[in-house]
Amino acid sequence: MREVVAVEVVRCSAAGTTVERDHVAVEAPLEIRVGGAPVTITLRTPGDDEALARGFLFAEGLLGGPGRPGPAVRGANQRGEQVIDLELDAPLAAGGAHRAFVATSSCGACGKDSLEALALDLAPVPPGFSVARAVVAALPERLRAAQRVFERTGGLHAAGAFDAAGATLVVREDVGRHNAVDKVVGWAHAAGRLPLSEAILCVSGRTSFEILQKAVRAGFSVVAAVSAPSSLAIALAEEHGVALCGFVRAGALTIYAHPERIL
Amino acid sequence: MREVVAVEVVRCSAAGTTVERDHVAVEAPLEIRVGGAPVTITLRTPGDDEALARGFLFAEGLLGGPGRPGPAVRGANQRGEQVIDLELDAPLAAGGAHRAFVATSSCGACGKDSLEALALDLAPVPPGFSVARAVVAALPERLRAAQRVFERTGGLHAAGAFDAAGATLVVREDVGRHNAVDKVVGWAHAAGRLPLSEAILCVSGRTSFEILQKAVRAGFSVVAAVSAPSSLAIALAEEHGVALCGFVRAGALTIYAHPERIL
Repeated sequence: MREVVAVEVVRCSAAGTTVERDHVAVEAPLEIRVGGAPVTITLRTPGDDEALARGFLFAEGLLGGPGRPGPAVRGANQRGEQVIDLELDAPLAAGGAHRAFVATSSCGACGKDSLEALALDLAPVPPGFSVARAVVAALPERLRAAQRVFERTGGLHAAGAFDAAGATLVVREDVGRHNAVDKVVGWAHAAGRLPLSEAILCVSGRTSFEILQKAVRAGFSVVAAVSAPSSLAIALAEEHGVALCGFVRAGALTIYAHPERIL
Repeated sequence: MREVVAVEVVRCSAAGTTVERDHVAVEAPLEIRVGGAPVTITLRTPGDDEALARGFLFAEGLLGGPGRPGPAVRGANQRGEQVIDLELDAPLAAGGAHRAFVATSSCGACGKDSLEALALDLAPVPPGFSVARAVVAALPERLRAAQRVFERTGGLHAAGAFDAAGATLVVREDVGRHNAVDKVVGWAHAAGRLPLSEAILCVSGRTSFEILQKAVRAGFSVVAAVSAPSSLAIALAEEHGVALCGFVRAGALTIYAHPERIL
């Protein structure tokens, strides 16, 4: 399935009105299954479905550290919509598919059974890793430069993992910011690189609770964003040892939590 | 509860590093109940909780047209987190609270029992209403001008309803774009102004499936956004008779569906 689709549009500007062929980012449903059992449905941009599924399950605490999924099986359900089915070599975490079925937090907290679920079972990121300010300041530009689909559509969020020297480990795009982060974490899970405690997560746009939740679970020591964090994102970063930077633009940045990691 | 909270930040720029007092948008959990029964939890910016709850329930198809909720009761759960409880004078739509419990689509499709849920029971918006291009082109500026919290934090999405002359009916902000739309629709529901078929919905950022789903349910004939639409947003607009405009900036705009509504 394609990431981008051509559409006919009417473009209006001071120069006049023209009918043109344009490109938009694809948003399409994906059903994630584990061992044949439906876990959730997400609307995502196609292209990294297996990484998205792994990252989503990991963020939900359903993929343990050592237990790795086997190869993913792709298919379609009876309505012809796409399905990805992961075989786990370990059972789903406590509650299993049922828990996941209810806790479909592609969007952080919505879908939780109760507010209780916000009291997450997240381990803090250990201290020690730090990064030069100039490295963080340069990340949004690298993130944007690596966005293939954005160039064509102007319509995608991005997330990327970078090392202490600012080298790109991975950059992924999606119509949903949370999906882009899931794809990054799923890539790291498949590559056996979790936790990513010596890496920086850079995201386009804002940072909310859900982004920090996924970042902490993956062990990122530093999170950098182009725009503002929410109060809850700051609280989660503060509590779990994550340096949180916002408004990383044009060489400047604002540090909202754990500034000792930014040298 | 406040919409904005003060935090201490470290600001780094070419001019040096300073410790400053800054403001960020509040993101906090709200449990929505109907007649005492928990329906969903959302992370939102406080301030329009009753409108948010109404708009969310309406978008989910749980609030019928004629049946109106009585006054909302505010409270807290046993963990001290905020609760809003709406009394309905009509029973919840088919499936009731249990359906809603599973289908917590604050984020569109995640949380649905199955992809079946994507085949929405949405009525098309009737033809007839149209609006001048210059009116649409001016909306993002009006939206931004009305954003009180954004001015202080740079961190909020906005949604607004405007009439055919471009006059502002309502503008609401939230850390979540979907919440901002729910607040607008909830305002209209409380004011007895649904469907909003003679109004334009303007949103900051991108348009995805979830935004169009909420817009169609509320009966908007025109949706305008500052950034790009997704493929599924366009498909939903096309199918349900909604004019969809994107990249509405600096007097220019691109029309992705039903250009006959833009004069």
